[in-house]
Amino acid sequence: MTTEFTTHLTEAVVDSLKDTADPRLRELLAALTRHLHAFVRETEPTMEEWEQAIGFLTATGQTCTDTRQEFVLLSDVLGVSMLVETINSSEHGTESTVLGPFHMTESPVRELGADIDLVGGDEPCVVSGRVLSRDGTPLPGAVLDVWQANDQGFYDVQQPEVQPAGNGRGLFTADTEGRFWFRTCVPSPYPIPTDGPVGDLLRATGRHPYRPAHIHFIASAAGHTPVTTHIFVAGSDHLDSDAVFAVKESLVQDFTETDDPSLAREFGVPNPFRHARFDLVLNPVQS
Amino acid sequence: MTTEFTTHLTEAVVDSLKDTADPRLRELLAALTRHLHAFVRETEPTMEEWEQAIGFLTATGQTCTDTRQEFVLLSDVLGVSMLVETINSSEHGTESTVLGPFHMTESPVRELGADIDLVGGDEPCVVSGRVLSRDGTPLPGAVLDVWQANDQGFYDVQQPEVQPAGNGRGLFTADTEGRFWFRTCVPSPYPIPTDGPVGDLLRATGRHPYRPAHIHFIASAAGHTPVTTHIFVAGSDHLDSDAVFAVKESLVQDFTETDDPSLAREFGVPNPFRHARFDLVLNPVQS
Repeated sequence: MTTEFTTHLTEAVVDSLKDTADPRLRELLAALTRHLHAFVRETEPTMEEWEQAIGFLTATGQTCTDTRQEFVLLSDVLGVSMLVETINSSEHGTESTVLGPFHMTESPVRELGADIDLVGGDEPCVVSGRVLSRDGTPLPGAVLDVWQANDQGFYDVQQPEVQPAGNGRGLFTADTEGRFWFRTCVPSPYPIPTDGPVGDLLRATGRHPYRPAHIHFIASAAGHTPVTTHIFVAGSDHLDSDAVFAVKESLVQDFTETDDPSLAREFGVPNPFRHARFDLVLNPVQS
Repeated sequence: MTTEFTTHLTEAVVDSLKDTADPRLRELLAALTRHLHAFVRETEPTMEEWEQAIGFLTATGQTCTDTRQEFVLLSDVLGVSMLVETINSSEHGTESTVLGPFHMTESPVRELGADIDLVGGDEPCVVSGRVLSRDGTPLPGAVLDVWQANDQGFYDVQQPEVQPAGNGRGLFTADTEGRFWFRTCVPSPYPIPTDGPVGDLLRATGRHPYRPAHIHFIASAAGHTPVTTHIFVAGSDHLDSDAVFAVKESLVQDFTETDDPSLAREFGVPNPFRHARFDLVLNPVQS
């Protein structure tokens, strides 16, 4: 039932925030209150539904550990993480995506050309390209932090007894012409963790937990805004139904079947191999 | 930045819910997605603000224990609990308010007229009235579950070494004319728990944590919808700024100073005493 009481309740809560010292916090909480109340007014949850929601949020918090962030996962599967990430991204240059939960250890410093696949995955490949400023100028000394799952869909931190620490990770510095290249194996699609409340949510909504195959990058260079992004393997399963909604068309890259013995020799990979080539474009910091 | 990507993201998330088996769950999650995304679009949180929000929600979940529900408290201080409660309440009869976090043990069965103040609070009082059906018919045998803080603002479960279990609690059965009466002490305002994330939120927003003095009731009778409510002590501090927004005008009751030796004798209280008199009105279950 809507009463005079409920009509005035939202403004009473917003008004209670009037002494908030930080004006931005006041703005955020007032907007949160209005949107939360609008959600409740629209859906009119029963007391039992409200209790279920409280129980779900509680379980989500209690599933978090030092190495697991279930609330980030919830934000991811509701598209909120990608919305926040994209709102904060630059208008030009390489598009951004979520950091994701597996950038939790430092990537080992590696030489250009090194193989980040320390265990020998099924499909060797070469990833190469340039780091450029928005106007096309190469950015020598740009730093690329790279991390990916293996060809079974697991990160090193998920399989400490199978993968050596640092497998699938590397910190590279672009050469004097802004070029980078490294070897790896073609990554696989993998499921986000489903043994917690977010997994229950996916099952209840008939959604699969998979992410299409991708490699993570953070590219940074002096005088430029860093970009956190992925490249996705063209043709991967689940490209049109990423569990965390992170796929942007511009980030889908061909991992081209390449039959070129001399290039293979140059990169130090068996021929034929797969080769992903793309540039990462950063925006100058606005002064 | 708003892009074509963000424009389509909300509908992509809503569309991902299309295979949800339970249509009500689908409705709730689709509305939640739309309202959450609208909040993000309006406020454009930075990545740091988003991380702070994730951290706050995580800490809120991790503060919950078997005897503490910090997410209910968060819902309370944002007015969400009262909104849900009021939406689910009946249009007629005694107005409802939140259950609150202290109805966690069974109230001991007591005879009409018993004193629920087992330790002797400062201001003895009598609470009396009738339980009526909506048309004014008394409801003999109606059951009243009553609980309150002592005159220092603490419930028995908060002070197990000071208050005997069941102090401030009673389960009463109305007499053949629907009447109830019991003795107690006038309750005090008290603060909600402030040593968790919700306390941090109140401090950051310059809000006090107090609830005005009140006594909780759940009234139930055969053939009627139970009501969960409070009565508030007229003149109490914080009536206009209850930390959980639960005060409704109709529930504020005079605890009248009464100088009547014969009535005092009848109730078994020292003269003068304070006396709250009101009726609780239940709605017949609709058939």
